[in-house]
Amino acid sequence: MGHSVRDKQEAEEHDISRAISFHQNGDEIPSVYKVGLPPKRKLMSEFTSTVKETFFADNPFRHFKDQSKSKKLILGSQALFPILEWGRYYSLSKFKGDLIAGLTIASLCIPQDIGYAKLANLDPQYGLYSSFVPPLVYAFMGSSRDIAIGPVAVVSLILGTLLQNEVDPVHNAAEYRRLAFTATFFAGVTQAALGFLRLGFLIDFLSHAAIVGFMGGAAITIALQQLKGLLGVIKFTKKTDIISVMHSVWGNVHHGWNWQTVVLGSVFLAFLLLARYIGKKKKSLFWVSAIAPLISVILSTLFVYLTRVDKDGVQIVKKIRRGINPPSAHKIYFSGPNVAKGFKIGVIAGMIGLTEAIAIGRTFASMKDYHLDGNKEMLALGVMNLTGSLTSCYVATGSFSRSAVNYMAGCQTAVSNIVMSIVVLLTLEVITPLFYYTPNAILAAIIISAVLGLIDYEAALLIWKIDKLDFVACMGAFIGVVFSSVEIGLLIAISLSFAKILLHVTRPHTALLGNIPRTSIYRNIEQYPEATKVPGMLILRVDSAIYFSNSNYIRERILRWLSDETQELDRKGLPRIQFLVVDMSPVINIDTSGIHALEELHSSLQKRDIQLALANPGQHVIDKLHASKITDTIGPDNIFLTVAEAVQTFSPKATVEV
Amino acid sequence: MGHSVRDKQEAEEHDISRAISFHQNGDEIPSVYKVGLPPKRKLMSEFTSTVKETFFADNPFRHFKDQSKSKKLILGSQALFPILEWGRYYSLSKFKGDLIAGLTIASLCIPQDIGYAKLANLDPQYGLYSSFVPPLVYAFMGSSRDIAIGPVAVVSLILGTLLQNEVDPVHNAAEYRRLAFTATFFAGVTQAALGFLRLGFLIDFLSHAAIVGFMGGAAITIALQQLKGLLGVIKFTKKTDIISVMHSVWGNVHHGWNWQTVVLGSVFLAFLLLARYIGKKKKSLFWVSAIAPLISVILSTLFVYLTRVDKDGVQIVKKIRRGINPPSAHKIYFSGPNVAKGFKIGVIAGMIGLTEAIAIGRTFASMKDYHLDGNKEMLALGVMNLTGSLTSCYVATGSFSRSAVNYMAGCQTAVSNIVMSIVVLLTLEVITPLFYYTPNAILAAIIISAVLGLIDYEAALLIWKIDKLDFVACMGAFIGVVFSSVEIGLLIAISLSFAKILLHVTRPHTALLGNIPRTSIYRNIEQYPEATKVPGMLILRVDSAIYFSNSNYIRERILRWLSDETQELDRKGLPRIQFLVVDMSPVINIDTSGIHALEELHSSLQKRDIQLALANPGQHVIDKLHASKITDTIGPDNIFLTVAEAVQTFSPKATVEV
Repeated sequence: MGHSVRDKQEAEEHDISRAISFHQNGDEIPSVYKVGLPPKRKLMSEFTSTVKETFFADNPFRHFKDQSKSKKLILGSQALFPILEWGRYYSLSKFKGDLIAGLTIASLCIPQDIGYAKLANLDPQYGLYSSFVPPLVYAFMGSSRDIAIGPVAVVSLILGTLLQNEVDPVHNAAEYRRLAFTATFFAGVTQAALGFLRLGFLIDFLSHAAIVGFMGGAAITIALQQLKGLLGVIKFTKKTDIISVMHSVWGNVHHGWNWQTVVLGSVFLAFLLLARYIGKKKKSLFWVSAIAPLISVILSTLFVYLTRVDKDGVQIVKKIRRGINPPSAHKIYFSGPNVAKGFKIGVIAGMIGLTEAIAIGRTFASMKDYHLDGNKEMLALGVMNLTGSLTSCYVATGSFSRSAVNYMAGCQTAVSNIVMSIVVLLTLEVITPLFYYTPNAILAAIIISAVLGLIDYEAALLIWKIDKLDFVACMGAFIGVVFSSVEIGLLIAISLSFAKILLHVTRPHTALLGNIPRTSIYRNIEQYPEATKVPGMLILRVDSAIYFSNSNYIRERILRWLSDETQELDRKGLPRIQFLVVDMSPVINIDTSGIHALEELHSSLQKRDIQLALANPGQHVIDKLHASKITDTIGPDNIFLTVAEAVQTFSPKATVEV
Repeated sequence: MGHSVRDKQEAEEHDISRAISFHQNGDEIPSVYKVGLPPKRKLMSEFTSTVKETFFADNPFRHFKDQSKSKKLILGSQALFPILEWGRYYSLSKFKGDLIAGLTIASLCIPQDIGYAKLANLDPQYGLYSSFVPPLVYAFMGSSRDIAIGPVAVVSLILGTLLQNEVDPVHNAAEYRRLAFTATFFAGVTQAALGFLRLGFLIDFLSHAAIVGFMGGAAITIALQQLKGLLGVIKFTKKTDIISVMHSVWGNVHHGWNWQTVVLGSVFLAFLLLARYIGKKKKSLFWVSAIAPLISVILSTLFVYLTRVDKDGVQIVKKIRRGINPPSAHKIYFSGPNVAKGFKIGVIAGMIGLTEAIAIGRTFASMKDYHLDGNKEMLALGVMNLTGSLTSCYVATGSFSRSAVNYMAGCQTAVSNIVMSIVVLLTLEVITPLFYYTPNAILAAIIISAVLGLIDYEAALLIWKIDKLDFVACMGAFIGVVFSSVEIGLLIAISLSFAKILLHVTRPHTALLGNIPRTSIYRNIEQYPEATKVPGMLILRVDSAIYFSNSNYIRERILRWLSDETQELDRKGLPRIQFLVVDMSPVINIDTSGIHALEELHSSLQKRDIQLALANPGQHVIDKLHASKITDTIGPDNIFLTVAEAVQTFSPKATVEV
């Protein structure tokens, strides 16, 4: 290995074996590289940095530093109302995009809103109300440019099922509505509080896999619920699980189905699905699927008006209250047993709404590469729902289907939400009477075609390919929702997600390392079968932080590796193991139980006359090893920068005495 | 660096820069070392290996492999009854040790049992019963050689407080006892089930720190409870928190205290504490502290018998039922509302008992270096308590104080438990009437001096030094027990332990790496301040598995490192960053959310014209990267074996274009 083959870069990059060779030749340069012990941090500074990293990871106040008071006020207002920031750069060309997008999502949202309100067991106008006030509030406070705000299927379903467990929506309609507003109020409070207290990371605890399963299950549940409207069944179960619903559907097949409704519904469902297919096949024709629901509503309403099939039992929307949102602050329960109920339901609906909105917001932010502040976004959604609860709205959030249409229609800013909001306002003031003859079956068909987009079987397939445990969480959530209820599905999703983390922390992976030929690198023998073991030594890597929940397991697992290896060496008549090197690179942290386990491991090894050595302990680990004085027990000379150094130091001794 | 300085070991250990230098010189040997992709495992084999590692990590059936049927039967019996195994090698010299140890712990356990039964609101004989049957069962089935079985303070307290929440122990004594046996039955079922289902790892979820805090708090609670007996107070609170107890104590100071009791109790407490101090100071005098309680009982009983101070209000034990355990199977509730209550209490008491016994067992097993099978141990403890519940015993487990005495008295096997059991049998049959005049104050003093050993302030100090978050869990448990109740303390202990794990998984550490001078090693700049950054490159290390709960944070954190670095470089007028290398060594695993985050990171970087590279992805990670095809997105050439290789490959490009 002459100097000639080395070039400029290499000259700077000497290798570790050189440092060691100096050592073995008694050269003056310090032999084995010392493992760094960072300067001890003060308790307070450690505490503040942990708090900062947990709650203020994004350092929201960095812009405020070293600014004048008036500048701080401006920055503060801009932080709270991003419209003050991006509004300054707003232009006519941007407005053109927003106008078209806004009109498109308005045409989509009006029929959807009426249907979703039914899912929440509310009168149709409440769906429209929720597409008027919340999008306006969001446009001023939100930072996503692509999200379309309004009532969504899953939240409507959750709200509907949870509320009807408490109050009967038919016989106690007034109390039901009041509880709905109370729940909306607390949903808003929850969302705003999470944002304000910077607890946004809590929604990350619902894993992607769990969301995919949960959404798919909710979509199927919602579609099944629509069979009531699509088949014209009058007596229908209130339960949402597939078995009860199928029972209702087939139990009514002889008397309960209304054939005119079935025909009408099927024709328009076919039309909607075709439009959806076209929109999916050719991205430039996305507007076909966006406009199809409104066309269905217009055509079917005209048809019923002309043929008066409603007299034959085709159910229609009938009266929708005209005019904009009435105030509802006085309807919210602030005392009595309904507060607790409303709070519980509000927290669940608020969290689900948040999860959906943040997921959408992040997706589009990453597609257009702008930054979305999760905590700020939650505050915006919270204030939006709080305002909504005072103006007869129920929980609104970002809609998957409408946000996608918004994006494809070329929206530029949240102004598209304002445009949509104005169209809904006009609808409420002017054209609600026109919906009188709209058949319920068409609304059912619109909802079915909308929620089909939530069933992301491609994502489920990918999850299956990548991570089987994730798939279990995904299917658990799906099956829970479909066969039991939304709450059970949610519970399963969250429990399985956590169980997975805990499983990894409780039974971490350990690997046997070997030397990769012609290098001083040591890697997992399973991953690199060409890697060779070092005689007289056992080199292991622990692939996890060492915590109370795994410290005993890790200690026992290491001893098991040792006894397995010893047996094999005995059988082959090879020299026994004298050194056990634990590669600590992936050991991010260690706690007191972990330290105990290391101490016990060390004393077990001493009794077997085997020397324990640690390689590459990280910052936190070496800190704690020192604090606990276990470095002295193991011997400071047995803690190395790399596995290679440990091997270099030990191999002469290991080979001498056989 | 001539060949002369290299010795035999080094010749085998070429360095990585060599492999790279070949590459740069167009040599034929493959340049950059490929990251190993282990052969794809079948789903079933992956599943079975996960299950095996989780539940059968210790491979309990390995001895059964390739054995004849009769041999299997013998091995099976030996596995269930370890006495069949070690009994064959039992000798007279071992028996000598066991006899002395057994007699010593018997002298200690008899007064303790009577006191502990009072803590559980049961008559004194039930404490003795629980020191007769359970130790016998354990001796046949248990595998610890040092544990001393019987009633213990903390479990007695928990059982007492939980049971009296349900049934009044004074006015409903019969029902109370029945519920106690029911709880004991379910405690046994829980323990045996955990062992049989191999869920033993569940008790690891109570961290060492939490146990230290919990035990300390329980000890203080128990000691405070003893003030009733020590001061002769008759009207005493049933609550266990320090404020209620202090209220009871000082509220009764003028009328409630009995001065004769106070004097008697204080004198013997002083004697016991002195004996304890002597035993601690000089290990060879441990028997002084072991024998002191029995001496106190004898002396104080004699004193009361002679002086008849019981007539002046000194409370005494009075009658203890003579004879061995009556059967109690018919007293266990198997129907009615008391089943659920007994079950709940049994599960809690059983888990606490298990935690204590396993902690003790492990401590001594590691001191004498023998293996303790946690799951088998649980089965033994479970069967022991099951049997106990049928023979009028309440929950027994391993006692800290008596096990330590057992060990120091030179016990060799579980035979010392049999000796103790026989002594208790004789006590029950012959000498219980002698306890008639034993003053309660002496029992209180004995309990106080016993539980003081549970307050391990040295361990708490060490925890403070090593890990501040552990200390928070420790103090949380302590304060919860002392100021509220045992259940609250337990809840706090478990919640804080989990919160800690989740915090680490939610906000993992990331580090900026630099090159350690004269090596090709890259390490955390904070830990190794001498490490230098590589121009044009940002090298980061993610110190955690990338899961749903942290994937967004990690992506954002990496982008923040990037923008911070870019700002600094801009200010200094240095070349911009063109390559971002993420060291994946500590990234043990990745899930679908993690893959998404990487994809988003990659696309964000592309928009900034920065190349993403990954170094040293592990077995599971590379597997999932391939499955998700993200390797193609990032480019297979941008995934390296080490950071050094990535730097070697990129640095020419990075320095050329400035």
